[in-house]
Amino acid sequence: MGRERGKSFYMKMKNLVGERFKERPSDCVVDSHAFMVRGGYIKQVANGIFSLYTPARRVTQKIEQIIREEMDNVDCQEVLFPVVLPGALWKESGRYDSVDSTLARFNDRNDIPMVLGMTHEEASVQLVRDWASSYQKYPFSIYQIQTKFRDEARPRAGLIRVREFTMKDAYSFHTSQEDLEQYYDRMYRAYERVYARAGLPEVIAVKSDSGMMGGSVSHEYMLLTDIGEDSIVICKECDYRANMEAADCVTRNEAGEAAPLTKVYTPDTKTIEELVGYLKISPRQMAKAVVYQKNADDAVVVAMIRGDLEINETKLRNYVGEPIHPAVLTEDSPVVAGFIGPVGISKDVTVIFDASLKGIENLATGANEANYHYTGMNISRDIGEVTYVDVAKAVEGGICPCCGKESLIVRRGVEVGNIFQLGTKYSKAMNMTYVDAEGKDQFPIMGCYGIGVGRLAASCVEERHDDWGPIWPITIAPWQVQLCCLRADDDVCRGISDQLYADMQAKGIEVMYDDRDIRPGAMFSDADLLGCPIRVIVSPKNLKDDLVEIVTRDKSVQVKVPVAETMNKVREIMDMLYAQIEDRVPEIL
Amino acid sequence: MGRERGKSFYMKMKNLVGERFKERPSDCVVDSHAFMVRGGYIKQVANGIFSLYTPARRVTQKIEQIIREEMDNVDCQEVLFPVVLPGALWKESGRYDSVDSTLARFNDRNDIPMVLGMTHEEASVQLVRDWASSYQKYPFSIYQIQTKFRDEARPRAGLIRVREFTMKDAYSFHTSQEDLEQYYDRMYRAYERVYARAGLPEVIAVKSDSGMMGGSVSHEYMLLTDIGEDSIVICKECDYRANMEAADCVTRNEAGEAAPLTKVYTPDTKTIEELVGYLKISPRQMAKAVVYQKNADDAVVVAMIRGDLEINETKLRNYVGEPIHPAVLTEDSPVVAGFIGPVGISKDVTVIFDASLKGIENLATGANEANYHYTGMNISRDIGEVTYVDVAKAVEGGICPCCGKESLIVRRGVEVGNIFQLGTKYSKAMNMTYVDAEGKDQFPIMGCYGIGVGRLAASCVEERHDDWGPIWPITIAPWQVQLCCLRADDDVCRGISDQLYADMQAKGIEVMYDDRDIRPGAMFSDADLLGCPIRVIVSPKNLKDDLVEIVTRDKSVQVKVPVAETMNKVREIMDMLYAQIEDRVPEIL
Repeated sequence: MGRERGKSFYMKMKNLVGERFKERPSDCVVDSHAFMVRGGYIKQVANGIFSLYTPARRVTQKIEQIIREEMDNVDCQEVLFPVVLPGALWKESGRYDSVDSTLARFNDRNDIPMVLGMTHEEASVQLVRDWASSYQKYPFSIYQIQTKFRDEARPRAGLIRVREFTMKDAYSFHTSQEDLEQYYDRMYRAYERVYARAGLPEVIAVKSDSGMMGGSVSHEYMLLTDIGEDSIVICKECDYRANMEAADCVTRNEAGEAAPLTKVYTPDTKTIEELVGYLKISPRQMAKAVVYQKNADDAVVVAMIRGDLEINETKLRNYVGEPIHPAVLTEDSPVVAGFIGPVGISKDVTVIFDASLKGIENLATGANEANYHYTGMNISRDIGEVTYVDVAKAVEGGICPCCGKESLIVRRGVEVGNIFQLGTKYSKAMNMTYVDAEGKDQFPIMGCYGIGVGRLAASCVEERHDDWGPIWPITIAPWQVQLCCLRADDDVCRGISDQLYADMQAKGIEVMYDDRDIRPGAMFSDADLLGCPIRVIVSPKNLKDDLVEIVTRDKSVQVKVPVAETMNKVREIMDMLYAQIEDRVPEIL
Repeated sequence: MGRERGKSFYMKMKNLVGERFKERPSDCVVDSHAFMVRGGYIKQVANGIFSLYTPARRVTQKIEQIIREEMDNVDCQEVLFPVVLPGALWKESGRYDSVDSTLARFNDRNDIPMVLGMTHEEASVQLVRDWASSYQKYPFSIYQIQTKFRDEARPRAGLIRVREFTMKDAYSFHTSQEDLEQYYDRMYRAYERVYARAGLPEVIAVKSDSGMMGGSVSHEYMLLTDIGEDSIVICKECDYRANMEAADCVTRNEAGEAAPLTKVYTPDTKTIEELVGYLKISPRQMAKAVVYQKNADDAVVVAMIRGDLEINETKLRNYVGEPIHPAVLTEDSPVVAGFIGPVGISKDVTVIFDASLKGIENLATGANEANYHYTGMNISRDIGEVTYVDVAKAVEGGICPCCGKESLIVRRGVEVGNIFQLGTKYSKAMNMTYVDAEGKDQFPIMGCYGIGVGRLAASCVEERHDDWGPIWPITIAPWQVQLCCLRADDDVCRGISDQLYADMQAKGIEVMYDDRDIRPGAMFSDADLLGCPIRVIVSPKNLKDDLVEIVTRDKSVQVKVPVAETMNKVREIMDMLYAQIEDRVPEIL
């Protein structure tokens, strides 16, 4: 009994709590959301907050178990942090104040500020900082699988973007950057293994922006899909892949023919299109001004960029080092909207030059006076030496920063995981130190590593479905087999079906048995929505020839076998489906 | 790989995150708390909020798995509800307003009221009410294992009483009281199996008060221990067991010798002791008045009870039907403190008569006038027909309401689970209906069933420890075996130890390997704190005779076996330990 197995691996369809239905709900804009509602996987409780029915809970449990095993494989130890954390802990890191209302805050009965954990860097440092006081304890790594709450402004698409979700988050601690990098590589591989084992080997790692986590190097794992919220820059020729937010923009700048700086009357030319039409030049000969303000004090920041390119606001914000927003200009603003340029601009304005302007000797730009532009601007001649930074958005067909070919493409993607090299941001802020081999106090270097469980499940549905429902990979399917008794009122048909159900239970095969007295069409619709990889169909018609039909949900197998061969065939197909997945799982690093 | 097993079942002590130490922390008043802190199981994050280190996480996971299997056995389906719930859902049931500040409330970014789920009756009804609209769907039962937050006023004793905890909560839905009762019995048994499988077969079920859950019949599962917060009334002669809050009080009332109602001058007799001394009577001849006020409007409620008994405030509150508190009397109060009695009392006061007064024909009681009491009171003669209710506390040596013997004892207990017959309280309040076989709308009848996972772990430590640490039952121990290499610097000793470690891994035995170069005393102290049931000790001294020492944590086995026999002996002891537990697990109902 100590080593008993629960019996949840087999059950009858008629007992399954939750409804399956045909009509696509009008509020479901993405397929995974629609199928998970229609298939009785999830039910919305509040905006971005869902309950899971049994089929979804079984899927997420299997994903959690895969993650657990892969964390174990990289010597990461499972712990559990609280959902409710004291605000004081988040004040130590500074994030109590720096994070916006995505962080849910409340006061407890004693009026003490508390937060709902949206990530657990603070909690992880709190757990280990007393213990890990000597270099001999390092490196080590801990993880949890726990509920998180992020009060997102725009939850959407079912489980793709929610406010409450189950997440695996891991934190590693190191005494050197090299050690962190080595471990980071192991985690990177562990993540590849998780996706491959969950039946999504096509998930790719892309370089990402570290955002509110801090730190330098970070990667996101992306499933490329049109419903994704992220833009991913991918090189067709080499391995370069980056989130648009973090993607470098490399440009070839042509010097052009030098000309004197000339103020030109340019009425009615507030847009780039109007101006280039009026001046009969290419946008590539323009230095376009894009105006922002710092959130803190509304100070104006003007980003100058080549006319054919756009500003990457994430890179700009990272360079400025504080939050910014597109400017709201008034009559009191120190710039003249529509005619802004770097020559003679107000000293109250911070001007940033994108690298796309470097070396161009003949540029049109605003003259900081209504209805006037300059032509012939040469930045080094007319302004002096300036610092060029890359704050431009990468573009389709652009130059790969890695191989140098004009080979970039841009795709949409859903982030299904991320890993960060955090550095000492949290250990310093929270004063976690250890004594090194020389007896000196040092701050440990951290990494952190996250995967959203529900989003991974939904992404899988998004990527693996047909018109009728999900096609679950066998490793995370709610049940391995759907057994359909097509005529429950036929004694022979029911007898054989019941026997197969018993046989599958005896063999430990996860089976959902449908012995309802309903039409085959309705039975198959429900089976399609449950998406179990193998379907065993028992019908009076086939039984006349002593046959049972076995089909896979993805239609790759459709066979009829003698009744006595059913179990062997099911086992054989199961082995094949597992092997298809296992073949694409990379080795542990 | 699809059927791979994680490798977390074996690890080395030197890699285990978390500290073990010798000194009992001064803030730990109960043993389980002290051992779980000293043994590196838990770390406090805020008052009543803890993180779990790996050993505790492994214990709770095993408990969760046992619970899961037992819920499966009674056809309960696993789902997952949110931690954060909309306040509107709790308004439907009325509990948004009726529950005190134990319910944590906050407003989200859109200023919508949210609560942290402290129990999930509302969420369970929300999940199933659309689907379960026909009697044919019934009965069914769902459960989750999820984090709960209750903002307790007085968290204490480590994981025994916390604010955040992991709980299994189940909800069943029925079309008749008989069906609920039948299922309730199955759950009752499932709970007995959970405790027995977790190694705590001595947990007993007691009749309980239903409190804020509503409903009628309910039971609590109690582990009897001096550190418990609950008082449990137990009959030594029969099966009667009840929480003091719910325990009936049966009294034998002697009529006594009738006498006329006489007002007596009784100066300086505000207490019972003073009065019975002055009047030279027994407290059993007194009708004592205990004064309360209703929370809502401060209206005074006087409970009359025999002088030797105490009021059970839970029973009194249930009878009154609304919250009450001990009265704070002022000069304006309609009663005269110290001299209150039912004869001639103000009409503004509600008077309740405890059954202990019934039939007594000669009682002393207050005369509602300073310094005066009555003697000779006969309630039916002097007041008229009154309703007698049982609002008295049961007492040690009292009469068992079941077998009638004077056989009651009172013990302390920790509640480690509870089950409730809820009736239609939630289905009615939330307007969940189904159409019965006659086409009529009906409200389903519900049951609910909870177990706190962390508290069960802590209770197990409380019940199973010696002076040096926990003695975990093998079914929930963090690891099955602790392997101690007593001399890591001795090549032979290390070689044999390493080989045994590899052998155990190969056999799938959960093993914690201590190959640190530390003194045996320190090594054994740590092993005692981890409490693994089997310890394998490899030392140069025993190896001279080709022997390895194997002891159980509970000292029941202490043997030396030839090195080659180690694995067999370990296996044999494991089987014995599992069998000891399995022997006490009752059959599934």
